[in-house]
Amino acid sequence: MNSRKKINTITVSILNDQYTIKGDADVEHIEQVANYVDYKMKEFLLKNSTLPSKKLAVLTALNIADELFRLQKDYQEIIQLLDESPKKR
Amino acid sequence: MNSRKKINTITVSILNDQYTIKGDADVEHIEQVANYVDYKMKEFLLKNSTLPSKKLAVLTALNIADELFRLQKDYQEIIQLLDESPKKR
Repeated sequence: MNSRKKINTITVSILNDQYTIKGDADVEHIEQVANYVDYKMKEFLLKNSTLPSKKLAVLTALNIADELFRLQKDYQEIIQLLDESPKKR
Repeated sequence: MNSRKKINTITVSILNDQYTIKGDADVEHIEQVANYVDYKMKEFLLKNSTLPSKKLAVLTALNIADELFRLQKDYQEIIQLLDESPKKR
């Protein structure tokens, strides 16, 4: 039996450029992620249409990393609360 | 009394370029986020040194968005478990 994970390869469009993504995530997940990055980049572009696309991409990465760090904090807080709650025996 | 949030402005270095970031997050958080993006971009650069820096930044944004979506899923699962657990009265 082949136990290796299936690698999906899909081409996504980010700000009118094509990127080929490979990963073990399902196609729907990869598309969702790509659509989110595309949406965020277009949002920055609307705010500042003269921004070079490299800078736009870095600002998008920073913005998404900010969301990730905030969610990591919330997640850790919930895990800690669960750890501290009285255990059922 | 001034109830408005303090806006911090700091300059961070991402792959040897300077970016000025404004936000109500504390300086330490902004620096952590910037260091993470810088680290991820350098990681992609090590894997493929010929990649143009714009593509590098988009792939970094995609990679971090992938982490965000996975954590969002885990977070929602915990919240749902907590909602479904028997309520204490």
